[in-house]
Amino acid sequence: MSFDAMWSALESVGRHPRTGGYRRFAWTRDDTTLREWFAGEAAARGLDLTQDRAGNQWAWWGDPDAAVAAGRPGLVLGSHLDSVPDGGAYDGPLGVVSALAALDLLVAQGFTPARPIGIASFADEEGARFGIACAGSRLLTGQLDPDRARALRDTDGVTLAEAMAEAGHDPAHLGADPGTLRRIGTFVELHVEQGRALVDLGHPVGVGSAIWPHGRWRLDLAGEANHAGTTRLEDRRDPMLGLAAAVLAARSTARAHDCLATVGKVLVEPGGVNAIPSRVTAWLDARGPVDLDVRTVVAGVGAQAGVEPVEESWTPETTFDAALAGDLARVLDGAPLLSTGAGHDAGVLATAGLSTAMLFVRNPTGVSHSPREHAERDDCHRGVEALARVARELAG
Amino acid sequence: MSFDAMWSALESVGRHPRTGGYRRFAWTRDDTTLREWFAGEAAARGLDLTQDRAGNQWAWWGDPDAAVAAGRPGLVLGSHLDSVPDGGAYDGPLGVVSALAALDLLVAQGFTPARPIGIASFADEEGARFGIACAGSRLLTGQLDPDRARALRDTDGVTLAEAMAEAGHDPAHLGADPGTLRRIGTFVELHVEQGRALVDLGHPVGVGSAIWPHGRWRLDLAGEANHAGTTRLEDRRDPMLGLAAAVLAARSTARAHDCLATVGKVLVEPGGVNAIPSRVTAWLDARGPVDLDVRTVVAGVGAQAGVEPVEESWTPETTFDAALAGDLARVLDGAPLLSTGAGHDAGVLATAGLSTAMLFVRNPTGVSHSPREHAERDDCHRGVEALARVARELAG
Repeated sequence: MSFDAMWSALESVGRHPRTGGYRRFAWTRDDTTLREWFAGEAAARGLDLTQDRAGNQWAWWGDPDAAVAAGRPGLVLGSHLDSVPDGGAYDGPLGVVSALAALDLLVAQGFTPARPIGIASFADEEGARFGIACAGSRLLTGQLDPDRARALRDTDGVTLAEAMAEAGHDPAHLGADPGTLRRIGTFVELHVEQGRALVDLGHPVGVGSAIWPHGRWRLDLAGEANHAGTTRLEDRRDPMLGLAAAVLAARSTARAHDCLATVGKVLVEPGGVNAIPSRVTAWLDARGPVDLDVRTVVAGVGAQAGVEPVEESWTPETTFDAALAGDLARVLDGAPLLSTGAGHDAGVLATAGLSTAMLFVRNPTGVSHSPREHAERDDCHRGVEALARVARELAG
Repeated sequence: MSFDAMWSALESVGRHPRTGGYRRFAWTRDDTTLREWFAGEAAARGLDLTQDRAGNQWAWWGDPDAAVAAGRPGLVLGSHLDSVPDGGAYDGPLGVVSALAALDLLVAQGFTPARPIGIASFADEEGARFGIACAGSRLLTGQLDPDRARALRDTDGVTLAEAMAEAGHDPAHLGADPGTLRRIGTFVELHVEQGRALVDLGHPVGVGSAIWPHGRWRLDLAGEANHAGTTRLEDRRDPMLGLAAAVLAARSTARAHDCLATVGKVLVEPGGVNAIPSRVTAWLDARGPVDLDVRTVVAGVGAQAGVEPVEESWTPETTFDAALAGDLARVLDGAPLLSTGAGHDAGVLATAGLSTAMLFVRNPTGVSHSPREHAERDDCHRGVEALARVARELAG
């Protein structure tokens, strides 16, 4: 199938009728549909499909283990198919679809790879359901403990282990998978840009240089449930006041330290209009160019809200292989180098010591994690061509 | 069944295993269980059970229509069985169970009523699911338009009409019911106190004098979804900042104007940890002794949050029949008169011009709308005795 045909095939999966955004969460029915779609695309191309111990899917052109034995492990292209709540169509799927289309282009060009080429579709990159971003690549590389992962709960109280089992996968196998990792000589992830740097620079494609340090913290704000109509103000323990302080502190401390800080998810319990909440749980996302500044922002939010933030994930600054990034920029006729505040599976693999690179495709508004996320079709095609040129360079 | 046996029978219905609080919402399976329980208690006593056009249940001892024709309509005791999310056991059920127990006491005493005595169980008093408190009594008295009611939606998007139909009730019949209203000569609602006045005064039972003006407003805070890790602070439209302003303004303006204001329910969409929300919906509950002050608080919150609050309900000050309240206080050997910030079906009926009274039963901590809500069993029994004495006075 062509890029356009694959794109159309995915368009309706997990799309919410009211918002127009995607709700493709790990180990749901839509996730299964996406996994089956990927398996079908692999089969249609005669690729060998495997699933690793972390639940990620791999489709290989050539024998990856023979290549490991020969001392020249494969080139892997790919990204993920899941989404944030009401996310856009591009964040993730653009990288998977472009990898398949780039492989088709190489075949059409009669290219014979000197090492195997794999296409990866990572599980649960957004962490939308269980709270840990890049769960698939973190498990794969041993950065997420499988016992901790199995015990993660979604907002309905369902554990990741239960959700995996419900989707027909045995959670007992979850864990680091060195056999799969060994097959990856180089990993290249193509992704829609989540900012407007390429628009300003006038380039359709850029090359990733680094990912900002970033993390997620949970704020557990305790209160005391009581009647909204009869409890005197001075007798109240209302956790909404702590939430308000946290939201305002996130903005002011982030501004003071040149960081980004966001409260995007909140649970208010019990959630009665006429009851003071017993508990508010809020999640803080904080990022910035400098590790210590991000830490300062998080501490400041905690102090203002009167709680100790609970770290759910933390990723220090990730620098992609500088020589590789320089090579790719050269192969792509001087594509610009970009750093980003967004985390990616490519960053997790780079942290694990793999040679890793990213390509970014221009986003006209810079909007992401929103139904308004977009890339022009012509730029998508140029992304596919760029990925094919990179593959010729790295697997030629 | 005795008070204690009835209380035990209800104890497990709709109780959440983790919180220990009750989640008895209108037109759910638990609601049906409670309706069937009420019907069973009526049948066990040989009472005539009817359901009015608003979904409220009535159990009559004697012929209410003959009494209307004779110019002496009945005495009705009762309250409601639904709860707020994670509410206590007493708010509502204490009034229904006490009414049944008081009737048993009258029978045991060989009392022959001079007019019929009815027991009411009102539908959807808390408005926990569809947002309108006292929906059953407001529909009954024509204060809630049936078309508006049918179109109300819960947080899953289910309309009240759909929920009623699912529970086996035809929503086409919803509406004002003058035939039912005519049967009510006097209504007395017994309720757990939602404050500590009776503790301070050393009385087990008090008599209601008035209900503060109170209402609910919706705050629709619009934003723009975008990526939490890549969107510059100055480019953001983050509705969480409006929520924080609303929460702080609710507290400060309520304090300034001697009112109560609470934000107890919040929906953050789409609710992704790594996404700026596209929309926050918050509900403001505001009450106070003076109508104009409450209005000032609501306007102040809207101004601080940058939105026009949407009024979902508003109830001006309700004064119960002062002569009746004085009579009941005398019958109860000088029980104290209390005003309250909490709304009740008795208030809705009083607004509709019916002769209405309330009895309050002592609450040791004053906590309500919480699993910690409590009344000592001995005080509950004294509430039943008080209600029986009141019934002898009013139906003798």
